[in-house]
Amino acid sequence: MSELFDPLQAGPDVSAQTGDRAFVQAMLDFEAGLARVGAKAGLVPARAAADIADACWADRFDLASLGRRAVGSATLVVPMLADLREMLPPDSAGHLHLGATSQDVLDTALMLVCWRALRPVLADLATAAEQLARLAESHRSTVHIGRTLLQQAGPTTFGAVCAGWLVGVDEARATLSRVRRERLAVQLGGAVGTLARYGDRGPELVGRLAAELGLTEPVLPWHTSRGRIAELASALGTAAGTLAGIALDVALLSQTEVGELAEGSGGGSSAMPHKRNPARSVLITACAHRTPGLVATILAGMPQEQQRAAGRWQAEAPVLLELLRLTGGAAYHARDLLHGLRVDAVRMRGNLELTRGVVFAEPVTEVLAGHLGRADAGAMVTEAARTATAHRRPLRDVLDESLAARPERIPETELDTAFDPRRQLGAAELFVDRAVAAHRRMPGGSE
Amino acid sequence: MSELFDPLQAGPDVSAQTGDRAFVQAMLDFEAGLARVGAKAGLVPARAAADIADACWADRFDLASLGRRAVGSATLVVPMLADLREMLPPDSAGHLHLGATSQDVLDTALMLVCWRALRPVLADLATAAEQLARLAESHRSTVHIGRTLLQQAGPTTFGAVCAGWLVGVDEARATLSRVRRERLAVQLGGAVGTLARYGDRGPELVGRLAAELGLTEPVLPWHTSRGRIAELASALGTAAGTLAGIALDVALLSQTEVGELAEGSGGGSSAMPHKRNPARSVLITACAHRTPGLVATILAGMPQEQQRAAGRWQAEAPVLLELLRLTGGAAYHARDLLHGLRVDAVRMRGNLELTRGVVFAEPVTEVLAGHLGRADAGAMVTEAARTATAHRRPLRDVLDESLAARPERIPETELDTAFDPRRQLGAAELFVDRAVAAHRRMPGGSE
Amino acid sequence: MSELFDPLQAGPDVSAQTGDRAFVQAMLDFEAGLARVGAKAGLVPARAAADIADACWADRFDLASLGRRAVGSATLVVPMLADLREMLPPDSAGHLHLGATSQDVLDTALMLVCWRALRPVLADLATAAEQLARLAESHRSTVHIGRTLLQQAGPTTFGAVCAGWLVGVDEARATLSRVRRERLAVQLGGAVGTLARYGDRGPELVGRLAAELGLTEPVLPWHTSRGRIAELASALGTAAGTLAGIALDVALLSQTEVGELAEGSGGGSSAMPHKRNPARSVLITACAHRTPGLVATILAGMPQEQQRAAGRWQAEAPVLLELLRLTGGAAYHARDLLHGLRVDAVRMRGNLELTRGVVFAEPVTEVLAGHLGRADAGAMVTEAARTATAHRRPLRDVLDESLAARPERIPETELDTAFDPRRQLGAAELFVDRAVAAHRRMPGGSE
Amino acid sequence: MSELFDPLQAGPDVSAQTGDRAFVQAMLDFEAGLARVGAKAGLVPARAAADIADACWADRFDLASLGRRAVGSATLVVPMLADLREMLPPDSAGHLHLGATSQDVLDTALMLVCWRALRPVLADLATAAEQLARLAESHRSTVHIGRTLLQQAGPTTFGAVCAGWLVGVDEARATLSRVRRERLAVQLGGAVGTLARYGDRGPELVGRLAAELGLTEPVLPWHTSRGRIAELASALGTAAGTLAGIALDVALLSQTEVGELAEGSGGGSSAMPHKRNPARSVLITACAHRTPGLVATILAGMPQEQQRAAGRWQAEAPVLLELLRLTGGAAYHARDLLHGLRVDAVRMRGNLELTRGVVFAEPVTEVLAGHLGRADAGAMVTEAARTATAHRRPLRDVLDESLAARPERIPETELDTAFDPRRQLGAAELFVDRAVAAHRRMPGGSE
Repeated sequence: MSELFDPLQAGPDVSAQTGDRAFVQAMLDFEAGLARVGAKAGLVPARAAADIADACWADRFDLASLGRRAVGSATLVVPMLADLREMLPPDSAGHLHLGATSQDVLDTALMLVCWRALRPVLADLATAAEQLARLAESHRSTVHIGRTLLQQAGPTTFGAVCAGWLVGVDEARATLSRVRRERLAVQLGGAVGTLARYGDRGPELVGRLAAELGLTEPVLPWHTSRGRIAELASALGTAAGTLAGIALDVALLSQTEVGELAEGSGGGSSAMPHKRNPARSVLITACAHRTPGLVATILAGMPQEQQRAAGRWQAEAPVLLELLRLTGGAAYHARDLLHGLRVDAVRMRGNLELTRGVVFAEPVTEVLAGHLGRADAGAMVTEAARTATAHRRPLRDVLDESLAARPERIPETELDTAFDPRRQLGAAELFVDRAVAAHRRMPGGSE
Repeated sequence: MSELFDPLQAGPDVSAQTGDRAFVQAMLDFEAGLARVGAKAGLVPARAAADIADACWADRFDLASLGRRAVGSATLVVPMLADLREMLPPDSAGHLHLGATSQDVLDTALMLVCWRALRPVLADLATAAEQLARLAESHRSTVHIGRTLLQQAGPTTFGAVCAGWLVGVDEARATLSRVRRERLAVQLGGAVGTLARYGDRGPELVGRLAAELGLTEPVLPWHTSRGRIAELASALGTAAGTLAGIALDVALLSQTEVGELAEGSGGGSSAMPHKRNPARSVLITACAHRTPGLVATILAGMPQEQQRAAGRWQAEAPVLLELLRLTGGAAYHARDLLHGLRVDAVRMRGNLELTRGVVFAEPVTEVLAGHLGRADAGAMVTEAARTATAHRRPLRDVLDESLAARPERIPETELDTAFDPRRQLGAAELFVDRAVAAHRRMPGGSE
Repeated sequence: MSELFDPLQAGPDVSAQTGDRAFVQAMLDFEAGLARVGAKAGLVPARAAADIADACWADRFDLASLGRRAVGSATLVVPMLADLREMLPPDSAGHLHLGATSQDVLDTALMLVCWRALRPVLADLATAAEQLARLAESHRSTVHIGRTLLQQAGPTTFGAVCAGWLVGVDEARATLSRVRRERLAVQLGGAVGTLARYGDRGPELVGRLAAELGLTEPVLPWHTSRGRIAELASALGTAAGTLAGIALDVALLSQTEVGELAEGSGGGSSAMPHKRNPARSVLITACAHRTPGLVATILAGMPQEQQRAAGRWQAEAPVLLELLRLTGGAAYHARDLLHGLRVDAVRMRGNLELTRGVVFAEPVTEVLAGHLGRADAGAMVTEAARTATAHRRPLRDVLDESLAARPERIPETELDTAFDPRRQLGAAELFVDRAVAAHRRMPGGSE
Repeated sequence: MSELFDPLQAGPDVSAQTGDRAFVQAMLDFEAGLARVGAKAGLVPARAAADIADACWADRFDLASLGRRAVGSATLVVPMLADLREMLPPDSAGHLHLGATSQDVLDTALMLVCWRALRPVLADLATAAEQLARLAESHRSTVHIGRTLLQQAGPTTFGAVCAGWLVGVDEARATLSRVRRERLAVQLGGAVGTLARYGDRGPELVGRLAAELGLTEPVLPWHTSRGRIAELASALGTAAGTLAGIALDVALLSQTEVGELAEGSGGGSSAMPHKRNPARSVLITACAHRTPGLVATILAGMPQEQQRAAGRWQAEAPVLLELLRLTGGAAYHARDLLHGLRVDAVRMRGNLELTRGVVFAEPVTEVLAGHLGRADAGAMVTEAARTATAHRRPLRDVLDESLAARPERIPETELDTAFDPRRQLGAAELFVDRAVAAHRRMPGGSE
């Protein structure tokens, strides 16, 4: 909720859905919904329910004033109800907020905001996943040097790299969708969670309100049982972390010295006109970096006192809104990043050759082991790799010299195979197919 | 893994399952399993597989030496394989660790340890839930004053309180069980995740190994795709937070001034012989308090470089082991806490009467509103509550005086109802029934 | 920066000082300052410096537009400079941002905002400390039952409790003041931290700019050396945690069943007119609860790549602004809380008597040990405490009966002393004097 | 405290100093010290004090048994005192633990362990700093391409890079030393912090005990005032984060494609014999990565109830021990890393030339601006940089062609300067001198 920072840290849709006005509207949607189901249940006159629903528009409220007047009671609900009552005919005002407590309003509002803000988050994730699937297919066989601990290790394909990213994003989507569908529940419990005001009709009212607002019906009021909030926060943090993994790799593969990837719209610099910065990767990383601390804040807030917490509950809403914004921002920027990603297959091939064959030491050792025994083969390749690196010579040339001094004759075709990246890809391409197939089976969009 | 602190922070079973020896055994189980499935697939001689399996016993290894020698390569796998090779006949040694990379060993070992350690965690949670269900049923109608923001608010039942706890624990169990069942996957990818050593038979090997070890088969190797670790960590943190909520309430309700609950084996004090400390609640709180930061560490570690991370991956295992221990400790102590929990229903009733009726202000206002109008009723009750509190008089007496000055006559029976806690319980007892019924429908134990 | 939530989570002054406009103004203050010192050093024409300074007013900028246009380059500086250049005569525009890089602008702006926002934070902390000193003095001898693990333990004074809070607040103030004075440094390094554009005059420029802006001069540019940010974040988190400790105790001592404290302006409830909620304590707790995760985010962001980080740096500013707001909010509410705190010395005395003498078990045991030996004394008191608690009888009566069966005669005056809270206060009052004296020696206000 | 993991995550000295036995010894040191100062103050017979001191050796205790028996009371002090009493003559046993409470023992023990474990941590940091100072001096003028957002940006020297690291490490050392010297305080308060057992002699005893144990004397007992713990944790986290920044850069500069640095003892790989992994960087990163969450745990634990916390205090010791170990581990591995670091100045120079002059775009633009005006110069260089990059041509050649079409003549010497990295170093070498001079002024070792 900062004009300045929000474009960097949240997509425009999520920014709007988690803003002050959207939050107040969700509070008002609770009150309007409660009045409507109260009317259906015969507990509120139809006239009053209609009056209440008519008044429940956030644009009518002075948000800054609500904030200021909330301090005295530590809850936004008190001034919001006061303003709402003033807008209503006295007869109708008496039926407002029937049997509810302030936490019912705020928890349900938070759930509504989450439901609404998750739609664009999930849509951006779905788009990103689809782009990854296309990249994986396009580059199914594009040879790419795999790197472990930031050292070149052995060949794979860039499609396999994208397939790994895709599986991560699809798993994050599946979890986030499930939490959205199953865990965003209406809150209605009254002062101490018994719905005392409705006699024995409380559960009926809860069920009606859940249906009215499109939220799940909980087993019982969850005022101080915050597992669903924890699960949502965790799913958001996991999704953000998944995207940050992609951004990290894009930034690494975009390094001047690596140059295998470039962002379509590389960012400018205030001092260096020539630079093409990995701006989207930077933004994704910056968004995601802020999420683990917020998830921990939610988890640490789970122990809540008795029938309403004295502080940890009140900390939840702004933290969860921030999590929605940051994960939304990461997804928004990731969609853009992947949309414009430029892949330089020539450079990938060139980098694979940088070590002059040393990255094939493992398959070469396997070949030699078949002829010289494992111990000799290992020693010879390790020594040859060292020489090749030190003198900047092709590993194969160095090995040929060593092998010449041995009685065994190694068939050239075996060594050709060991030094051919295309024949050292193992299941890389099969894994692309599996990942894309699994992706195609997933339900789409925000479902 | 501290003789001194572990009894306080982990139950004995989880402590054993997450200890040094158990971890090394899980690493060895990977190697033995890989050799066995390699033999089944015809890639490893049966003799070698048998030799390898025979050698894979953690008791044969010098754990301190493994640790010391791991520093040079930053991985425990290098010295473990060195020791293992020394134990094997040369012909068999060559077939060890076929096509695998050190991360395959460590990730699979971690998954095995999680699978094993979660069994006692889930068993303790199941026992705790069962005890909560019994408490909820026993105290379905035990009148209890609900408290919000640590202030007395209105009547509920202690059974409803337990039902709320029960739903939280059962939800945490369900999530943890699901993650255990679906997300603990075998890791087998080889140097860069392509299983290059197996040609195109890699996926077959992964499937066989998953079956052999009782773990899930992933879509593809997940070396730097850590969503499953994040989900497990989150589920552990959520479970711990849920238990901490119960412990917090038990400690609050055990205060000298409240006295509604007491731990069966209240802890002694080194200086004050008379005290009965809520020792189990303290231990649960201490365990759970440490989990959110660890979950954040796991989430912050999700962005992992390329085909193997240079640091954040290596941080995962000890953190996840700690999370298992701490959540396990919380569950272990919670089971004990609930087993011995003493409920003082007389004191609960007494506390409900402390305010001399002021906690019934809400239903009393409702009654009066029907006769005096809402505005007058609200003002009268607020004023009377203030007087009653200030002069330590029963609210009903104060109200009777105020009402005497008004023309309206309020039927005594209506006020009797408003002041009778048993008739102000709303759906408290129904909610107990719902929670217990939902609990009875859950699969039991560690399933 | 939310109209709705900021009054709850930040005092009005800190809210203004950390808002969008204040941040942009600080960025502009950097540019104006740089131009001015450039002119003094003869590197920028006086005319250009004056033009630049004239243009540097945040009110002239469209903040939302800045935010939107920052996405492409992942930095607010690019659009800010573009807008600024448009406002300047071309001759002057060429002298803007002389030799600086975007990180110089943003880091220095952040330091300026911290400097400015810490003033009201420290002022509120100073006021709170002063109120604590007065409370400590007023209640230097007000007998109060000390509680450990939420159980009554032994007598102290409420003044000693306040003295403990005071020392905590004064220590947090001292640390925060020191960090503000010593660690808020100007940033000026140019593209890669060498100030290449200024030849060998770079250090001179840095010194001049530090003096111009009232910030510290660093040893060298600190683009990826974020220790000062970490220290500031930690000091803010420590201050917030200290205040949360006070809030927690106020809330506990305000419980209906305890009633020793009450907030002056206890918050109302939307459903329960009679309640006097500890609203300020709740707000302080809610603010402080959110700080540890943010401090962790700052610390986790310390490893920053090479000469400018690709994401973790960009995450810092919004997190640090949030930390300022939340700690500021905690301080603002704490000042209010302590200003209006109502202390019920009668209730304190009454609660001390709740256990009918059992809380004196420790000194009573000491007395008896002198006559019966330690073992017999301990056993007798433990047994008597149990009986007294179970049968709700005065401990002294129970003890008298037990002692009657023994040959030893215990002088009544010794037991009088053991059972007299005023004579069991140890150094409580001395500690009050020490804490207040230490407080009086501290420099005041925001110094 | 894991044989397996500790060598990876803590240096051997810190590991020993934070182990179970060291912790119990520190608890016993408290008891022995208290008896000694009690004797000096005339409150304990000299004989008893001598007996107690004689018994206080950790080797006499069964650590596992202490742990198991601590569960009942949730504190290790109860079984420790029980065992100790059994070792003492009855007359002396009665003088044990005089006037103290269990928290006094545990808090003071923790402070002693911190004091002791910080010595090797600070020594390793001092050694690392000294190595950085030498590297900075040796490479004061070694040309090195600065990189921002992982893109080549402009020239600096490797010495300047080391100087930046050095300042960070020295600042972290200074803070950690200050906290060690000023904030590690003895704890002695008795049951509720009043030292009731000593009458008015409490403060005297505290002062004596502080002197006896070599710890600071606090203003008053700090049972629930945990600022000093928070400051220590923060200082440890800041130190670890500083080291992780160095490790990150070493790993990045060691990439196969960059090759400017290598660890002296590059780690082997279980599958790839040729790899030289940045093993120490990985270990440092893995250690440091775990610290922010632990710092957050400590900060989140600051709100502690009344006169002794019911859970958050009990969580502190293991977390702080872990922080000591992990920061100690990072320092230990950093010392090794820097000791053996190999710098390839030839590769540094080679990488600087990778862009064929594009990294000099900024100074070149400055030169041209003096002749063509800023706008034309900027446009020409940007265009030329694009062409040079696209066609892999030297920027200067492309520019020469563009300049040939213009009437202005640019002196070759000006362009020579702009394209000469040695003349574009700005204050890089001066900054090295400043950092090393500041380092030489610091007190050494663990002071």
